[in-house]
Amino acid sequence: MDFISFLTSLVTSLIIFVVLMLCFAWLSRKPENHEIYYPNRILKGLDTSSRTRNPISWIKEAISSKENDIISVSGVDTAVYFVFLSTAFSMMVMAGIVLLPALLPVTITDHSVKFNNTTSNGTFSELDKFSMGHIGQKSPRMWVHLVAVYWVSLVTYYLLWKAYKHVSEIRAAALMSSEVRAEEFAILVRDIPLLLEGETRKEQVNSYFKAIYPDTFYRSMIITDNSKVNEIWEELEGYRKKLVRAETVYGQSKTIGKPEGVRPMNRIGFLGLLGKKVDTIEYCNEKINELIPKLEAEQKDTLRDRQLSSALVFFSSTVAAASAAQSIHARMVDTWTVEGAPEPRQLIWSNLSLHYYAREVRKYVVYIIVALMIFFYMIPISIISAFTTMEKLVKLLPFIKPVVKIVPVRTVLEAYLPQLALIIFLALLPKLLMFLSKAEGISSESHAVRAASGKYFYFIVLNVFIGVTLGGTLLGNFKDMEKGGLQKVPEILGKGLPDNATFFLTYVALKFFVGYGLELSRLVPLIIFHLKKKYLCKTEAEVKEAWAPSDFGYATRIPGDLLILTVTLCYSVIAPLIIPFGAVYFGLGWLVMRNQALKVYVPSFESYGRMWPHMHSRFVAALVLYQVTMLGYFSAKKFIYVFLIIPLPIISLIFAFVCNKKFYGAFKHTALEVACHESKETPNVERVYRSFLPPSLTSDKLDADHYGTA
Amino acid sequence: MDFISFLTSLVTSLIIFVVLMLCFAWLSRKPENHEIYYPNRILKGLDTSSRTRNPISWIKEAISSKENDIISVSGVDTAVYFVFLSTAFSMMVMAGIVLLPALLPVTITDHSVKFNNTTSNGTFSELDKFSMGHIGQKSPRMWVHLVAVYWVSLVTYYLLWKAYKHVSEIRAAALMSSEVRAEEFAILVRDIPLLLEGETRKEQVNSYFKAIYPDTFYRSMIITDNSKVNEIWEELEGYRKKLVRAETVYGQSKTIGKPEGVRPMNRIGFLGLLGKKVDTIEYCNEKINELIPKLEAEQKDTLRDRQLSSALVFFSSTVAAASAAQSIHARMVDTWTVEGAPEPRQLIWSNLSLHYYAREVRKYVVYIIVALMIFFYMIPISIISAFTTMEKLVKLLPFIKPVVKIVPVRTVLEAYLPQLALIIFLALLPKLLMFLSKAEGISSESHAVRAASGKYFYFIVLNVFIGVTLGGTLLGNFKDMEKGGLQKVPEILGKGLPDNATFFLTYVALKFFVGYGLELSRLVPLIIFHLKKKYLCKTEAEVKEAWAPSDFGYATRIPGDLLILTVTLCYSVIAPLIIPFGAVYFGLGWLVMRNQALKVYVPSFESYGRMWPHMHSRFVAALVLYQVTMLGYFSAKKFIYVFLIIPLPIISLIFAFVCNKKFYGAFKHTALEVACHESKETPNVERVYRSFLPPSLTSDKLDADHYGTA
Repeated sequence: MDFISFLTSLVTSLIIFVVLMLCFAWLSRKPENHEIYYPNRILKGLDTSSRTRNPISWIKEAISSKENDIISVSGVDTAVYFVFLSTAFSMMVMAGIVLLPALLPVTITDHSVKFNNTTSNGTFSELDKFSMGHIGQKSPRMWVHLVAVYWVSLVTYYLLWKAYKHVSEIRAAALMSSEVRAEEFAILVRDIPLLLEGETRKEQVNSYFKAIYPDTFYRSMIITDNSKVNEIWEELEGYRKKLVRAETVYGQSKTIGKPEGVRPMNRIGFLGLLGKKVDTIEYCNEKINELIPKLEAEQKDTLRDRQLSSALVFFSSTVAAASAAQSIHARMVDTWTVEGAPEPRQLIWSNLSLHYYAREVRKYVVYIIVALMIFFYMIPISIISAFTTMEKLVKLLPFIKPVVKIVPVRTVLEAYLPQLALIIFLALLPKLLMFLSKAEGISSESHAVRAASGKYFYFIVLNVFIGVTLGGTLLGNFKDMEKGGLQKVPEILGKGLPDNATFFLTYVALKFFVGYGLELSRLVPLIIFHLKKKYLCKTEAEVKEAWAPSDFGYATRIPGDLLILTVTLCYSVIAPLIIPFGAVYFGLGWLVMRNQALKVYVPSFESYGRMWPHMHSRFVAALVLYQVTMLGYFSAKKFIYVFLIIPLPIISLIFAFVCNKKFYGAFKHTALEVACHESKETPNVERVYRSFLPPSLTSDKLDADHYGTA
Repeated sequence: MDFISFLTSLVTSLIIFVVLMLCFAWLSRKPENHEIYYPNRILKGLDTSSRTRNPISWIKEAISSKENDIISVSGVDTAVYFVFLSTAFSMMVMAGIVLLPALLPVTITDHSVKFNNTTSNGTFSELDKFSMGHIGQKSPRMWVHLVAVYWVSLVTYYLLWKAYKHVSEIRAAALMSSEVRAEEFAILVRDIPLLLEGETRKEQVNSYFKAIYPDTFYRSMIITDNSKVNEIWEELEGYRKKLVRAETVYGQSKTIGKPEGVRPMNRIGFLGLLGKKVDTIEYCNEKINELIPKLEAEQKDTLRDRQLSSALVFFSSTVAAASAAQSIHARMVDTWTVEGAPEPRQLIWSNLSLHYYAREVRKYVVYIIVALMIFFYMIPISIISAFTTMEKLVKLLPFIKPVVKIVPVRTVLEAYLPQLALIIFLALLPKLLMFLSKAEGISSESHAVRAASGKYFYFIVLNVFIGVTLGGTLLGNFKDMEKGGLQKVPEILGKGLPDNATFFLTYVALKFFVGYGLELSRLVPLIIFHLKKKYLCKTEAEVKEAWAPSDFGYATRIPGDLLILTVTLCYSVIAPLIIPFGAVYFGLGWLVMRNQALKVYVPSFESYGRMWPHMHSRFVAALVLYQVTMLGYFSAKKFIYVFLIIPLPIISLIFAFVCNKKFYGAFKHTALEVACHESKETPNVERVYRSFLPPSLTSDKLDADHYGTA
């Protein structure tokens, strides 16, 4: 890719971004769009009218908002995500301040290499002058680069340490707040052993925990297999919605000219297209009356006969629950396994009954599948990146030659083709990874999100970053690859990196200009909402459903950010021009997401910052990858003081170890000094207990019958 | 080594054993030796007279003793050691029953190989006919050996599983007994953060734990730096002993002929050899009177000014203590770290104040030192095993030729020289490893013993077993080694094993005949005791000290047994003749140690079987080594179905993983269902608290002043 197409790509991205910003400023002021631009505020019952007519007032609001505002509006997880963004941003700024003025002059003024030896096609663009490929082999100028690697590493250690400490304080403060949180009083018990003759599951669990916690045990809730009752309940809810909709339609049809109205009709056959035509209101009422007793019978059956070998156990004190969640209860550790209960809303009921070894086996099976997937996808990605240049594409597919001869088409294609292919390709994956993570038998949504995020991170770093770099080098240095095998990966990575610098520069720019532009303007949800509102939604509830905001989607958002971080870190010294791009990515990201957190997204769970250790360790992994790559690159450049880099990965590992030992424990479990806060109100453990009941099992009758008598 | 010298060695060992047995039968019946042969019974106040005159009555007693007798006489740790011995014995017997009749005929009747290809010197003794070296390459007869490997592995899994379950039950039963155990009410807290201004350490600890455990917290004991007070206390005790001794001597000197007696005198200078002569009784009294107030002052100083950042925290309930020992207390996990308190007698006070990272650093430094030591000692061991044959020795040191020409000298030398060199060499090590393990900062004796035992195991397996095998092969197949490098170790091991089979046969025989003979007859302690009693001991206390029995010395005993186990396992199929030797080793060991446990040794600590997981995992490691070796050996024999062995090491690792997950947790911590047993008597937590005070700090005055007022 030459300089012109790089600039074209940048300018096009910028134009798209400006257009999207203007769209946002214009659209967000219209009251009929407020449901799309302020759903979080609407749900919280807050004022939605913009206070000023200034199109950039959202920036002011975002900057002036405090961390505590974010915590109160959107929760600790969101605040922690901002800590991550600001840490990455600070790192980029601190690296840029030193590296740009130090490295660029040193690099540009080196005239020892007239053309780049390492690129295979012999082209040499203006951009490469700013990269380390311009430095001659064995040049003493690389001392500056070596010091730069140390500077970036030290800055990262400092910022990460500060951030971990800060997050740990936020988490503790949130957990120590006097608010009553249901999950603080409960633990999840799995792998309950087989029942003795003549004992009910409830008696078994109650007597077991009463013996251990005579004073603090409150009651237990046996996990049941709810699949049948959920089915009936969903059917019932479906008919209830249909009924409301039919009544609304009927009400609207009573115009002045036609006061009797038109009773809505529907067919009861396949997809409402075949079968007998019936009066919808009557039909729904009939069905509802039929289903209610069926649901009640099924609820009783479920509670009595479909009890599984798991339970939620409730305590009257938070310290007892926190301590119970961390202790071994049974002599055989694969029975009566305990963990802290997650929030009621994020409990994955269908996974709770899986047995210990089933969970272990599933976990490893999923790991193997994911590993295969990562390496299986390597092949198409390598092919894509081999097509990165038009020349190669034309060489392979000669029939497209006439098309790419048209200059504008060619430029656009050159600029976007590979990146777009990559982005579309990656959009297919997250759902599958989330499904696989849940298949592991994880008990809570937030944990599943973390697991999916981890898998996605490995996938994109291995495939996009290493895959593209190696793939690009594959055609050029194929013989080297063959000779060295996998052992030479760092060296080949070192050699291959400078060739792909502009590709990643464009990738980062595209990500932040177009990505954040679309994020802020919310054009797609806006269009969908207006279409739905006009043609589909009849009732209030349906309209509300149409604009209901999503959550942050951490499972893909965080790996995406971590990929950009890895890329910018690895290129920071080789091609320091990437640093401002990285800084803009995280700075702009912070701003846009701050706006979205305050006004748009509503988190679907709260894990009190448990995502942080996950992000932290991958941040450190990116740093180690960077240090190893630099080791390979300096070696490829035959710089004899390259051994001075060797301590860095070791220091990084020690840093990760110390952080893990110092902070991680309190993220895995609730520290007792945190759990023993005093609550203002006396906690109503009965209400806590009820909050864990799934909606399909909630019924006034049942409470008296089954739950009341323990 | 040829067949004659092997037989000579066996017969000599047997004769020594018989002589030692006769010594034991004769000596143990004499009342003046009872302190050596029945110290445990004497200390417990039991009857020591043998009931019969039968010289093998001890065997009857050993066999008829039940596991519960052992637990009540010698504790759970001893009972667990017998579980290990009987498991190893059962494994040997079950392996022998199938392998000997199956493998020997198959091996002997193979005439395809006339002489062993793999030995370099071309000698081929009668013994080798029984070993797998006699089977021709690619012979289908190896199917039998392959099935034998599976049989041995499956038997081992079955027995280990049963044993782990059994040990786990013994441990739980012991911990659930109604007896009050001090350590069940306490936890050890380390890494207490810095004090705030105007707060004492005691206030800090008490307020912290009172907040978390308002109902169950009892009191705390701050760990102090006792080095100074210990010094004074030891000096004082020394003078007290001297005084008693001097008074006894003085009393004995008052004979009828000389009623005034002779007052003992001593010099007060260097080692009692120089300086002024003084009256010992007066001098000691003077010193004692001088030291008592000094000790009291020092005790006060210590308790006030030498407080360290660790404490023992006492609870009024066992469940609270067990649960507290497993929970994270502080947000920063490197502060307020907790662990279950060990027994008072095994607490290593000097290690308690080490900080978290100091412990971590020490741990890794010790690991590095031990690793260096293991590989540094490799060199002398290799040289020793290269001298294994007389021929080689004579070749290297021609001047000893005249000596070794005398046939009896030569035979004895051939039989014992290498083994003795090895045994003496190994005797140097355990103290150093124990010192290194304590330097890691471990808080209890039993844990230090486990750590030292682990190090010693790695040492002897790597150096004795692998070292001797590789060393023996080194001279023969040096070129192979050079070519293959470390990657070929399993193959070389496979090739080298049959050559060294007789060496290890002799080694095992020597170990059990001479080792257990000496163990049972206790000749060395007997001689030392009688010498001391006659020439050194004057007072009752001194005599008691002279016969005071030691503990089992698990730190070297268990690795020694595990080495024999590894050797016999690895040779079980290659040279099945070793199996009876292994069976005798563990069978005889069980008998002899049973006698010693009932009558001689007194354990110095009780860890409720925490040694078991340690033994179990090394047992499995030996099995994996065996399976990998067989993989190498079958490959060397060019047996094409060798791949059928590959699943075995994988199964072993899964087995280890499942055992670890199922059982280990309850060994690491006390399971709460075990801790919540009801005790018959109301526990006196004050007495529990006092039992943790070190003797140098125990004083009635202090209790009132310092401990009483919390």
